[in-house]
Amino acid sequence: MPIKKLGRQTVALANPPALIGHANVVGKKEGDGPLKNSFDHIEQDDTFGEKSWEKAETAMQKIALAAALDKAGQAISNLDYLFAGDLLNQCIGSGFAIRGQDVPFFGLYGACSTMGEGLSLASMSIDGGFAQFAGVVTSSHFCSAERQYRTPLEYGGQRTPTAQWTVTGSGAVILAKDGPGPHITHITTGKVVDKGIKDANNMGAAMAPAAYDTLTAHFKDTGRQPDFYDLIVTGDLGKLGKEIVQDFFKQDGIELSNYDDCGTLIFDLQKQDVHCGGSGCGCSATVLTGFLLNGMREGRWNNILFCPTGALLSPTSTQQGESIPCICHAVSISMP
Amino acid sequence: MPIKKLGRQTVALANPPALIGHANVVGKKEGDGPLKNSFDHIEQDDTFGEKSWEKAETAMQKIALAAALDKAGQAISNLDYLFAGDLLNQCIGSGFAIRGQDVPFFGLYGACSTMGEGLSLASMSIDGGFAQFAGVVTSSHFCSAERQYRTPLEYGGQRTPTAQWTVTGSGAVILAKDGPGPHITHITTGKVVDKGIKDANNMGAAMAPAAYDTLTAHFKDTGRQPDFYDLIVTGDLGKLGKEIVQDFFKQDGIELSNYDDCGTLIFDLQKQDVHCGGSGCGCSATVLTGFLLNGMREGRWNNILFCPTGALLSPTSTQQGESIPCICHAVSISMP
Repeated sequence: MPIKKLGRQTVALANPPALIGHANVVGKKEGDGPLKNSFDHIEQDDTFGEKSWEKAETAMQKIALAAALDKAGQAISNLDYLFAGDLLNQCIGSGFAIRGQDVPFFGLYGACSTMGEGLSLASMSIDGGFAQFAGVVTSSHFCSAERQYRTPLEYGGQRTPTAQWTVTGSGAVILAKDGPGPHITHITTGKVVDKGIKDANNMGAAMAPAAYDTLTAHFKDTGRQPDFYDLIVTGDLGKLGKEIVQDFFKQDGIELSNYDDCGTLIFDLQKQDVHCGGSGCGCSATVLTGFLLNGMREGRWNNILFCPTGALLSPTSTQQGESIPCICHAVSISMP
Repeated sequence: MPIKKLGRQTVALANPPALIGHANVVGKKEGDGPLKNSFDHIEQDDTFGEKSWEKAETAMQKIALAAALDKAGQAISNLDYLFAGDLLNQCIGSGFAIRGQDVPFFGLYGACSTMGEGLSLASMSIDGGFAQFAGVVTSSHFCSAERQYRTPLEYGGQRTPTAQWTVTGSGAVILAKDGPGPHITHITTGKVVDKGIKDANNMGAAMAPAAYDTLTAHFKDTGRQPDFYDLIVTGDLGKLGKEIVQDFFKQDGIELSNYDDCGTLIFDLQKQDVHCGGSGCGCSATVLTGFLLNGMREGRWNNILFCPTGALLSPTSTQQGESIPCICHAVSISMP
């Protein structure tokens, strides 16, 4: 069998898996934002009835996964594999959400790129002949992220202008060997790129080079031009990171007119006091599973390049003076 | 194409990938243990010349990966994918080790089961036709784990009798589509099992039910009996967890005579003051890449079932009163 690789980083799936179910759940702030009509569940109580923010994150994953399975008309025991990850230390959001469930499980860590990583591996598990159905779920929670990465919420720390706001939300996708589409046709797997940015409050600038690197590889590997896509959407670069990606392409003589970013889409940057926009594993996951995939089904876009970005730092690496390694995984989604 | 699944959790690889290179690096204590002759590098200075334990862990991954690539006669730029993970918050051991390297990267979190998870996904990437070469690397470091999970080293905390000792070490494997073997023939992917154990100093008892669950699934799915294998080896259950697994099988009327555990193999439990044995992502990884695979090459064993186990807890989940979700991935390795 020949290797299904195009160039160095891209796979063209021989039998593109279908996205047969997708759902999400978000918190109050996200539900007040411009994408409010695309969310399946908007919870006014960010604790989700749980005793800790971490348990709330686990509760969100369970809600999103159950809703996606329901839309797909599948029981979890029909999934051959579930791929999941989050931002919490040791990915406890996911581990506890999957606990006791009847499904073979692969835990991922790709920071905010995890939905892209999960879709890539789930697609390969199906196209490779190992699975008929596979699921992906990721999450983030503003409160669990804030106290883990920055300061206790009660501290009321000032945020810098380049800071982003971690999305409280979870998105889940069910993929199948056969189905009406949208389908995942190509995956481009990122390398770890670090251009020396050390400011952990400027993730957009840190992650933009990784996004540019993966996008460039995708176009080179596939021979597609950016205008093949109705929409190219990065994970959570926010306002500044998005501008940097556009600048990089301008230097290559390319005007990215069909380009947006999940971090700038999910919040109203003028009114919602989120500075550069949204971030977190839940950001690209909730934008994908609502606004983007619903839009494809409604005929708004036929071809989307979905490119979640992740910053692979930790508070410890920052305290030790390190810069920020980043990654971006691109997933090409098309309507038949 | 029919799905290559056997039963619920197992894949029989159509073209079993070859393990064409494997190498490891360990610290002084591991180098003083019974497996000392199976390690490629034994470092007397556990800092590996770095300024922090976390950077030392990254250094170990780089050493192990470079050595495995060297043995395989491959450059990293020939790897289609690299899978890596560790125990550190946000898996910084891996993210920083892969930073700037020319390889598409998938980050994993499976706690101490990560080598099993990585071998499973790397095998699927090759057997599915997406890769000619794929790599896996995992690590743990006693000092980085101790201060992250338990107490600062300087505190000199007393260890309970059921505690295990995190291995300082990293192991790397290079897999190829074609090669002389040993080959990975089957993978059995674990579910998240939690039987209610809450003592974070008794990982063996927490993880044993997950190991039993995956082993039982493997035998059921494949129709193989335990005595098909010359050696069944779990990840890092330690002395107590190993006894619990043997007890579970005894209740099923099966005497596991060909069974051992990486956590009990790597240290001399009588002399090295490690209580129940070794643990950490580096434990099963260094035992596999030395003692086990070298032993297969030397004709000591023809068929091994390698079953790393992981505890998906965090200090936060323990502080919040949670029990310990666990997982075990089984990988069947055979000589031609």
